[in-house]
Amino acid sequence: MIGKKMHDLAKRLFPINRSLTGKGVVETLNILKEYNPNLEIHSIKSGSKVFDWEVPDEWNCEEAYIITPDGEKICDYNQNNLHLVQYSIPVEKEVSLEELQEHLYSLEKLPDAIPYVTSYYNKKWGFCIADKDRKNLKKGTYKVIIKSELKKGVLHYANIIIPGKIKEEIMFSTYICHPSMANNELSGPILTTFLAKELRKKENYYTYRFIFAPETIGSLVYMSDKLKYLKKYVKAGFILTCVGDERNYSYLESRYGNTLADKVAQNILKYKIKNYNEYSFLERGSDERQYCAPGIDLPVCSVMRSKYATYPEYHTSLDNLDLITPKGLEDSFNLYKNIIDTLENNFYYKTTVLGEPQLGKRGLYPTECTPSTNYTQAFLYRNILAYADGKNDLIDIANILKVDAVSLIPIIKLFLEHNLLEIN
Amino acid sequence: MIGKKMHDLAKRLFPINRSLTGKGVVETLNILKEYNPNLEIHSIKSGSKVFDWEVPDEWNCEEAYIITPDGEKICDYNQNNLHLVQYSIPVEKEVSLEELQEHLYSLEKLPDAIPYVTSYYNKKWGFCIADKDRKNLKKGTYKVIIKSELKKGVLHYANIIIPGKIKEEIMFSTYICHPSMANNELSGPILTTFLAKELRKKENYYTYRFIFAPETIGSLVYMSDKLKYLKKYVKAGFILTCVGDERNYSYLESRYGNTLADKVAQNILKYKIKNYNEYSFLERGSDERQYCAPGIDLPVCSVMRSKYATYPEYHTSLDNLDLITPKGLEDSFNLYKNIIDTLENNFYYKTTVLGEPQLGKRGLYPTECTPSTNYTQAFLYRNILAYADGKNDLIDIANILKVDAVSLIPIIKLFLEHNLLEIN
Amino acid sequence: MIGKKMHDLAKRLFPINRSLTGKGVVETLNILKEYNPNLEIHSIKSGSKVFDWEVPDEWNCEEAYIITPDGEKICDYNQNNLHLVQYSIPVEKEVSLEELQEHLYSLEKLPDAIPYVTSYYNKKWGFCIADKDRKNLKKGTYKVIIKSELKKGVLHYANIIIPGKIKEEIMFSTYICHPSMANNELSGPILTTFLAKELRKKENYYTYRFIFAPETIGSLVYMSDKLKYLKKYVKAGFILTCVGDERNYSYLESRYGNTLADKVAQNILKYKIKNYNEYSFLERGSDERQYCAPGIDLPVCSVMRSKYATYPEYHTSLDNLDLITPKGLEDSFNLYKNIIDTLENNFYYKTTVLGEPQLGKRGLYPTECTPSTNYTQAFLYRNILAYADGKNDLIDIANILKVDAVSLIPIIKLFLEHNLLEIN
Repeated sequence: MIGKKMHDLAKRLFPINRSLTGKGVVETLNILKEYNPNLEIHSIKSGSKVFDWEVPDEWNCEEAYIITPDGEKICDYNQNNLHLVQYSIPVEKEVSLEELQEHLYSLEKLPDAIPYVTSYYNKKWGFCIADKDRKNLKKGTYKVIIKSELKKGVLHYANIIIPGKIKEEIMFSTYICHPSMANNELSGPILTTFLAKELRKKENYYTYRFIFAPETIGSLVYMSDKLKYLKKYVKAGFILTCVGDERNYSYLESRYGNTLADKVAQNILKYKIKNYNEYSFLERGSDERQYCAPGIDLPVCSVMRSKYATYPEYHTSLDNLDLITPKGLEDSFNLYKNIIDTLENNFYYKTTVLGEPQLGKRGLYPTECTPSTNYTQAFLYRNILAYADGKNDLIDIANILKVDAVSLIPIIKLFLEHNLLEIN
Repeated sequence: MIGKKMHDLAKRLFPINRSLTGKGVVETLNILKEYNPNLEIHSIKSGSKVFDWEVPDEWNCEEAYIITPDGEKICDYNQNNLHLVQYSIPVEKEVSLEELQEHLYSLEKLPDAIPYVTSYYNKKWGFCIADKDRKNLKKGTYKVIIKSELKKGVLHYANIIIPGKIKEEIMFSTYICHPSMANNELSGPILTTFLAKELRKKENYYTYRFIFAPETIGSLVYMSDKLKYLKKYVKAGFILTCVGDERNYSYLESRYGNTLADKVAQNILKYKIKNYNEYSFLERGSDERQYCAPGIDLPVCSVMRSKYATYPEYHTSLDNLDLITPKGLEDSFNLYKNIIDTLENNFYYKTTVLGEPQLGKRGLYPTECTPSTNYTQAFLYRNILAYADGKNDLIDIANILKVDAVSLIPIIKLFLEHNLLEIN
Repeated sequence: MIGKKMHDLAKRLFPINRSLTGKGVVETLNILKEYNPNLEIHSIKSGSKVFDWEVPDEWNCEEAYIITPDGEKICDYNQNNLHLVQYSIPVEKEVSLEELQEHLYSLEKLPDAIPYVTSYYNKKWGFCIADKDRKNLKKGTYKVIIKSELKKGVLHYANIIIPGKIKEEIMFSTYICHPSMANNELSGPILTTFLAKELRKKENYYTYRFIFAPETIGSLVYMSDKLKYLKKYVKAGFILTCVGDERNYSYLESRYGNTLADKVAQNILKYKIKNYNEYSFLERGSDERQYCAPGIDLPVCSVMRSKYATYPEYHTSLDNLDLITPKGLEDSFNLYKNIIDTLENNFYYKTTVLGEPQLGKRGLYPTECTPSTNYTQAFLYRNILAYADGKNDLIDIANILKVDAVSLIPIIKLFLEHNLLEIN
């Protein structure tokens, strides 16, 4: 249901050319704003200094293609924006096949796929082509047309803030700089959008922050004037990327794997999802590179489906709308809801009585002891109470009991109602 | 030898009907007092508030049985007290087989066994019967007689205190509320009795406390007016239950498995017993539920043979005097003596010299080094001295050396005599 | 190359009779002084009290042999000094074969080997003989000649100090008390000599201390008047013994395996050597017995090839110049150079920028992202920078990255040059 709506949004966003900068990014953000009117769009000028980096020029491209010696138009950017190397400089010239080859990228192992290539910080031009098509190129003179523009302009990014009961925050960050690819990256901004929409419906304990920014430079820009605030208030954060396919879940830890974000992710993945791939921080590749950098030290990890750089379709035209599915998107949505529900209830609980409470008189324990008495639920109740000693938060208790924390929330609420527990 | 005496006591106590309250408990305690005249018997009134609980009414039963349509007397309480559901209310009436069935308990999987059933806090009546006998019951009118009494009375419990050199205590707790069953529970009070008898013979470093009380409500009653004292002085405690059969030893940890009681139990079991079953606190089921509850936090674990609720005869008439043996009881007695000996010698030791002491000049090390010199003992000596650095207690040293702590006691004493060690 | 020079030195030292004391020790030290003129030779008088020990008498032997009933000279000390039990008292008498047998040592399992036997602290005499020769001894009268001398004299030891930028020290200790055996012990003093020679060539951060002393009593003597200083300044130390053969490396930890010496040894062995044997401190047998004793607590471990007491030739005439090889010696030399290089660079490093540095603009990162871009080096660079957060020293970073620390030194130096890192 919600998965279908997510996939519909993917279809709408898919054809747009996104890059670090440019009109496609703005168009994308404006569409996302339809779902969450409180999405705020910001910009920063090219050339601005951001930590060790500099905001690049704004890049836009009107059209780009190659005319073969036979007069055929190939590698047409307006047909598939992956054909053009991102940040290609403008070109209009005739070249031999030999010279053209130096500017072509293809994948021998995936002859049908157009690869995704960027050259943000080194000025050059190039085209990406399916290897089977490249093999058919004949000797002769090719005409290369790239009507692109690199200029002092702006870089766009956006965020949604949903104030909660407290100023402390849960943060979600996704990126909006990839052209027509679905799992990496469209699934990320789409899930982010739908999570924000969901959280706007209710009263939350934590404040929620959702960030949409181009990868690397965007997250650095975002932190550059808010770092002190984010370090003070962000209690857990997640990079939302590669969350749309139906393959195994993946978890990529924070720098030391020991933040609240890691803790909740590990519990839910281990005890609710059960089968998932764990990746060390050494295998990172997205914005945790910035959020978890020394001195930044935000508590951020990633929970994905197929991790970037591990699945065959990654960074090619095969990462398309068939790879992500309504079910894949909806499952990820539900997983993150579990993570959020757990965080919202992750208090230190403490029993109000000394010794075991008499659960029987409250109807929470079998009153007779016979060979057929089923104690499963009673033992679960007792075990929660035994470890609710004020030293364990909800996730700690769940870990001790080797269960997912979400499943304990209704029981904790029951105990709070019976005044058997209090928040420490 | 001592095992035989223990088993003889079991035979004497076996037929008595014990329950949470009642005459059988008092009779049992009086017999135990014969072995340890310093056993003090206490009582508390029905209805007394104890933490979250209330002391139940006193229950006694004179006779109980069923008359079949053929006039046969079955389920005779005076023949086997397991036939009657504990705390059954008085009944004298005729019922159809159909109605009777609702009050009968049997075990399909153990057709010869009478199960053990209680209903302390929910007023009802019932009988327990071997399944093979239940299957033979014919249609007709049955006469049910239960001459029981539930009244405002008292609940009994007892303790033995053996003062030591210091006020700090080692505590043993057992329960006395089960009718005719041998491993769970008679083995417990019997071992407790014989350990107390043994410790009364000598001067001890620690003060020893032995508690006999009905399970759950009894341990809560016991702690209700002594909690502050116990929390201050009890350094290690053990639940004595299921210690009479000859099967594998079992260890059930305290709430976090990190108390002195756990430490000594783990060392002796791991390095002396070697084969044993480890149970998490999540699998608990006896008075550690109370002693280790949040806020109580006494350092208590259990070392048993077959753990309750894991062996087929558990809570049935098959848990009888054949299941527990003189050898099983004596081995458990010796194991607990090892635990006690270790605790009595568990100091932090420190070498008195810098560098390795010259053991050779004291006759503790080979004076020549030849290919056939046996260094086994010499190396053990050296290793003890190497880790006697004031930071390790006896058990720590034994754990580092991967040996049981008991075996090191004579060597430690030898070193103390040679002034090579001092207590830190 | 250097291995050949090391082996040549072994050949020269091999025939000399070394023992706890005596002329052979002095002769050995004088030869070693040729390689490092700053080697200082010290002595201490027999009978001096050293911690729990006493310096033994000085022992020298001019000649020792047995004349068989056939007039043949056997067990000639001047042919192979292993024939005589070390510290044998002077003897000149005729004995029956029966009496002689009580003074002979041989190895049934190694019939060709002369065993190595000592009796430092128990006055007696004896000869060591190959078991196959012992079996051929005929009945009759044997003449035993031992022209040895035990007198109040001195015990010799030596050290080399190479001052560094700071007073804090790295210490190497080896022993010089074994007669003609090559792996245990000649390889030790030879490697020590060549490491000192190497370190004298350059400016070092740490001060280096090299100790040559008879085992046990010598290291105690050495520490007796310097303990306070050594405890203050020695940051890591290594026992150099059994470092000449070509078999697997061995690592013997310090008392708790947690010193800087252990840390560097573990990293280099685990990630550079990969195959090696780990030994617990319980399996120690050399001067770590003294250096790591309680109250001494120096941070000392051993990195060896075949550990003493584990290889078949150990403490026999088979531990000869064939067992140690130029390659074996040179590999050990290089391993210790790796250990030293790591220690010299083992600072806490910290990135100078917030967020990931832009490595691309410094030529340290690929500037385009294509399907064929090789990120191996780039990822290694990024990972080093990610964990250079001021909390990890070089070895910590290497351990997190699961690589040997030595391989990171050039990269760290590159980052220091680019001002991307600073020492914390």
